Amino acid sequence: MQRPSGRKPEQLRDVRITRHYTRHAEGSVLVEFGDTKVLCNASVEADIPRFLRGKGSGWITAEYGMLPRSTGSRMGREAARGKQGGRTVEIQRLIGRSLRAAVDLKLLGEHQITIDCDVIQADGGTRTASITGACVALVDALRYMQREKMIDTDPLKNMVAAISVGIYNGVPVLDLDYPEDSNADTDMNLVMAEDGGMIEVQGTAEGAPFTEQQFAEMLALGKAGINELIALQKQALAE
Amino acid sequence: MQRPSGRKPEQLRDVRITRHYTRHAEGSVLVEFGDTKVLCNASVEADIPRFLRGKGSGWITAEYGMLPRSTGSRMGREAARGKQGGRTVEIQRLIGRSLRAAVDLKLLGEHQITIDCDVIQADGGTRTASITGACVALVDALRYMQREKMIDTDPLKNMVAAISVGIYNGVPVLDLDYPEDSNADTDMNLVMAEDGGMIEVQGTAEGAPFTEQQFAEMLALGKAGINELIALQKQALAE
Amino acid sequence: MQRPSGRKPEQLRDVRITRHYTRHAEGSVLVEFGDTKVLCNASVEADIPRFLRGKGSGWITAEYGMLPRSTGSRMGREAARGKQGGRTVEIQRLIGRSLRAAVDLKLLGEHQITIDCDVIQADGGTRTASITGACVALVDALRYMQREKMIDTDPLKNMVAAISVGIYNGVPVLDLDYPEDSNADTDMNLVMAEDGGMIEVQGTAEGAPFTEQQFAEMLALGKAGINELIALQKQALAE
Amino acid sequence: MQRPSGRKPEQLRDVRITRHYTRHAEGSVLVEFGDTKVLCNASVEADIPRFLRGKGSGWITAEYGMLPRSTGSRMGREAARGKQGGRTVEIQRLIGRSLRAAVDLKLLGEHQITIDCDVIQADGGTRTASITGACVALVDALRYMQREKMIDTDPLKNMVAAISVGIYNGVPVLDLDYPEDSNADTDMNLVMAEDGGMIEVQGTAEGAPFTEQQFAEMLALGKAGINELIALQKQALAE
Amino acid sequence: MQRPSGRKPEQLRDVRITRHYTRHAEGSVLVEFGDTKVLCNASVEADIPRFLRGKGSGWITAEYGMLPRSTGSRMGREAARGKQGGRTVEIQRLIGRSLRAAVDLKLLGEHQITIDCDVIQADGGTRTASITGACVALVDALRYMQREKMIDTDPLKNMVAAISVGIYNGVPVLDLDYPEDSNADTDMNLVMAEDGGMIEVQGTAEGAPFTEQQFAEMLALGKAGINELIALQKQALAE
Amino acid sequence: MQRPSGRKPEQLRDVRITRHYTRHAEGSVLVEFGDTKVLCNASVEADIPRFLRGKGSGWITAEYGMLPRSTGSRMGREAARGKQGGRTVEIQRLIGRSLRAAVDLKLLGEHQITIDCDVIQADGGTRTASITGACVALVDALRYMQREKMIDTDPLKNMVAAISVGIYNGVPVLDLDYPEDSNADTDMNLVMAEDGGMIEVQGTAEGAPFTEQQFAEMLALGKAGINELIALQKQALAE
Repeated sequence: MQRPSGRKPEQLRDVRITRHYTRHAEGSVLVEFGDTKVLCNASVEADIPRFLRGKGSGWITAEYGMLPRSTGSRMGREAARGKQGGRTVEIQRLIGRSLRAAVDLKLLGEHQITIDCDVIQADGGTRTASITGACVALVDALRYMQREKMIDTDPLKNMVAAISVGIYNGVPVLDLDYPEDSNADTDMNLVMAEDGGMIEVQGTAEGAPFTEQQFAEMLALGKAGINELIALQKQALAE
Repeated sequence: MQRPSGRKPEQLRDVRITRHYTRHAEGSVLVEFGDTKVLCNASVEADIPRFLRGKGSGWITAEYGMLPRSTGSRMGREAARGKQGGRTVEIQRLIGRSLRAAVDLKLLGEHQITIDCDVIQADGGTRTASITGACVALVDALRYMQREKMIDTDPLKNMVAAISVGIYNGVPVLDLDYPEDSNADTDMNLVMAEDGGMIEVQGTAEGAPFTEQQFAEMLALGKAGINELIALQKQALAE
Repeated sequence: MQRPSGRKPEQLRDVRITRHYTRHAEGSVLVEFGDTKVLCNASVEADIPRFLRGKGSGWITAEYGMLPRSTGSRMGREAARGKQGGRTVEIQRLIGRSLRAAVDLKLLGEHQITIDCDVIQADGGTRTASITGACVALVDALRYMQREKMIDTDPLKNMVAAISVGIYNGVPVLDLDYPEDSNADTDMNLVMAEDGGMIEVQGTAEGAPFTEQQFAEMLALGKAGINELIALQKQALAE
Repeated sequence: MQRPSGRKPEQLRDVRITRHYTRHAEGSVLVEFGDTKVLCNASVEADIPRFLRGKGSGWITAEYGMLPRSTGSRMGREAARGKQGGRTVEIQRLIGRSLRAAVDLKLLGEHQITIDCDVIQADGGTRTASITGACVALVDALRYMQREKMIDTDPLKNMVAAISVGIYNGVPVLDLDYPEDSNADTDMNLVMAEDGGMIEVQGTAEGAPFTEQQFAEMLALGKAGINELIALQKQALAE
Repeated sequence: MQRPSGRKPEQLRDVRITRHYTRHAEGSVLVEFGDTKVLCNASVEADIPRFLRGKGSGWITAEYGMLPRSTGSRMGREAARGKQGGRTVEIQRLIGRSLRAAVDLKLLGEHQITIDCDVIQADGGTRTASITGACVALVDALRYMQREKMIDTDPLKNMVAAISVGIYNGVPVLDLDYPEDSNADTDMNLVMAEDGGMIEVQGTAEGAPFTEQQFAEMLALGKAGINELIALQKQALAE
Repeated sequence: MQRPSGRKPEQLRDVRITRHYTRHAEGSVLVEFGDTKVLCNASVEADIPRFLRGKGSGWITAEYGMLPRSTGSRMGREAARGKQGGRTVEIQRLIGRSLRAAVDLKLLGEHQITIDCDVIQADGGTRTASITGACVALVDALRYMQREKMIDTDPLKNMVAAISVGIYNGVPVLDLDYPEDSNADTDMNLVMAEDGGMIEVQGTAEGAPFTEQQFAEMLALGKAGINELIALQKQALAE
């Protein structure tokens, strides 16, 4: 089995994490997984959603979008069509849930952090790149809040990262790019915390169902990939 | 550990599957998981989505809705608000993907089957009840198509069922009802085929992440539950 | 003249009224006029519309929907299309007006009751079945409010019921089912109170106009039907 | 009993019908019932709705709107809010049904006539003024189609007019203006054809129900008013 | 070069300004530039937009619409389509900006004036006719506010008027009607104040770009036209 | 007078034009005017709008968007709000018109080029940066079409660029950044072609009107700026 990119089954693409990418956001990260490039901007807001008011707890939410020509053929602009598609909604809910698991919302106080993940260029794995980059932007926003004395204690519990794993030509492979993703039998997205805790496991078989054995292999592959990503996040945050 | 309903950790709620529940749909099933009641209507249509035309393949899609007062307090009607919420979109995409894995779409010819899952009464687990009931409605629709000579061969590959598993007060439990679901640390939805193939695994930790050990226990619990459900589906279809 | 169902011109379909059909709503009624089945759920809410705030008066409103496959061929889901159709809007306004005439809104205090009428299966006359069932659900909601000491006095002034009458093959007939309705020259919907007061008369000729004589005959037929329906409502409420 | 305007119970307001009011529409009529002013423009279109294609029959439809400041206090513009309100939808469906009863749709051929009724100034009775003016605009459009040889035979079966009747301070009165309308117990809109055929009767009691006796009196009053209106329509068309 | 209307290059169409055209609005003007007819209604509201609250300043805004059959062929109704088109949005923003330049918003106090410009009949130049008529309606609304003691001082700084200029068959011409507008190479809209101050200059070349020389000639032509219009506005306001 | 940035009145910000910025689009340019950064992607499509079909002519259109956190405080995402704001619509129409003036649409054949201008970071002048960058992306798309033999002849007539000019503290200045823009009395956007032809002039005074003299000075300043920009465009295209 040969991956189209020549990578080994357990090999991530080149991952680059660039902090302070734009100047207005409290956290701004460009994350690149090979040719997939996502801009993750974290905005700190004093307002929180109505259902949380007066409960002394904060909130983290995410929005996701693809630039119309981030893809091989141009997609209609969601703002022009007047609604977000089902895939967009599904992804931004996943990003929000994943990041909320990284933070002690009580320690956040009555603040909301909104993370915008906008795909500049897509080549597979935009949701896992988004989560991985968004977590770094989130940390920068939390540091900003501490510097500005909006919070006293660091609410971060755990770094969180995400990776995709799939079965391509019968072999479990890590971090699928678009040519692999569009031909894989099974696609699994894994979100894990720094301490090995599992936050989200989404395995999907549009084609043939997968066996428990395959599932276990994908999980192991993903876990190793997450560990690499968390090391890269920490390195970027140390700079 | 005592479950609010008094059930044992590995015990399903009473499951009832009533076929031919309404008279117009080609497949019409009322599925009840305890107090959760979902009406699943399968409609056979000659038309298929544009992206499939001329490819000699069929399509299965699903729509999901909750009656405004299926829940403890009234929810706004999505038709009146003018858009489907994110949770609705996420669920109906899951139902559609799950059912497509049950069927050989080539054998379906250029037909579309739309499964409407409308929640009459909600008490937790509406998405897994929907998938389980929808698969029975789908089989009735496929039988209708064979009787009407719309297709020659049965396109069903495998029965498909779904169940939720969660960690409630530290213990993995099967088929969460609403009081459990709203207090569980982790919620996993499992969709499997009759032959043991895994179709969709969605494990989510909004609160504390789960360990691999817990994940494996939940998987085992869910697998046993699915086997029971598939037996109940087959019994209903044999009547 | 032979009615397709074999009924006599002045004969209602079998009418069944099942209370406490679902468990969350303060009033929950499944009403069946033959094969037409509508679930009517009454929800008591502390909030009232802005235009009534501070006026010491309550409000009753209704929403109406058809499950996509309640009909012979599948209709698009209004929530997915993003708007309620004209017919839906017209019907839910009629239901709301009719029920407001049954109640002394001052005695209701600053509460709103919303009645959701969702058509499970359609065979003609869904709007009149909705009003007839909704009034029973409304009474159950008012009884709930009295038990819960939300109100002191029963605000019900009059039971209200509704029936359709039409001219089918030149003969006035009561309670049209779908095969009659789609072939009738004239369709009249009549909403009346228990004391014989007329609340709403809507006679419509899409085909040939009707004469005053025909109108008077339809009115007489409808009045007798309403009396039967009110007796059935009371019997259901006495159980 | 004194009407606010000093009119007698059976007295219409001053009614003026001005044809050729704007220059682009095939039929263009400004209709005034006292201070209520509605511009009714009839547009002939070659296209017909999908459900009628290939059936050799035409269609008549109507749209209704109020200019934002046609009323005492400014109403939000429906185009800006992004949807038509329930009252608007209800009225434009009534206008459309009423006009379809005036015409033999078979003789119209595969053409559609759209009547736009836009309220320039409102003082009660905008829907009945709209129907009355729209029928004159419709006749002008039919004459245009005959001149242009789009149709051979005049499809008009009957002139159609509409009027409101209500019970004001206990007395049935004709053609309610806004001060009466906002205080009436009962409001009835009557649409009739030139030959006395009844097309639409809509009697509504938001407050106290009305008796059959009152209903009969309102009907008689309305019928006389319609006869006057049809005479005025014919006079305008003869000019 | 012959203009289709026979006018001279520097000649306006017949301009008529009718005040008090409808009776509810605080300022109501029908403005006619030849066959272009726009109803401009100014509404005084106590509420101001959120971004201005507590700043002691008022606001002027505008909305624009075309009746569906104000044009040669019927346009879809924006309220029915559920959104305002790009051209509508662009025009109503221009009208609002132009009128805000006429008034000292501080002197207006915390009031908002909304000007609705609805095109009854279109023959080119609807945006410039709208601004010219709207300014007169605005003055009437300001006079109303002074009479009602809502403000002490007249906030009007300057009358404002607008005109179009274009290059038609190579020659700069004033106040283009529809046949000219649809064939012009360049279209310029000019908004100026009574004292010669320029408020808005919008020159657009969809076809061939224009030279600075042509631009200067158009500007001179427009300036003379504006002076004529302001004289007509003042004359109307003096009546 | 001192500009906040220390620039001279006639001095542009640093302008950088980076071609081939993303890999999928036929033309992809990142344009930077100081801290304003806009990604301009040109997509070639075989389809053209309905109103042009069969006329042997092509079309160029543009869409514009701002990433939610491209600005100092986060703006709501237009896709989530379900509609594009008025400012967005106005800007994307301006970009489209400007680019259409650069090209002979007949020579484009029945193709459409859509230019997406997405603002990554905003610091004033996003619309003029968009036009300037989009024209370079357009040229790359036209070169692609020639290489792919979709067209034989280069349809480019003229390079097009745009710049803003304003009056800041009484002095005309070129290329306003955000601190200047938000305090300027007058803002003018100028779009010109390489040969000096004027394509769009939009001068707006929200505060005090401007004089003809000021207008002439702004025009002169803008013209010089455009010449510089066109030189930079050409240099980028020569690389």
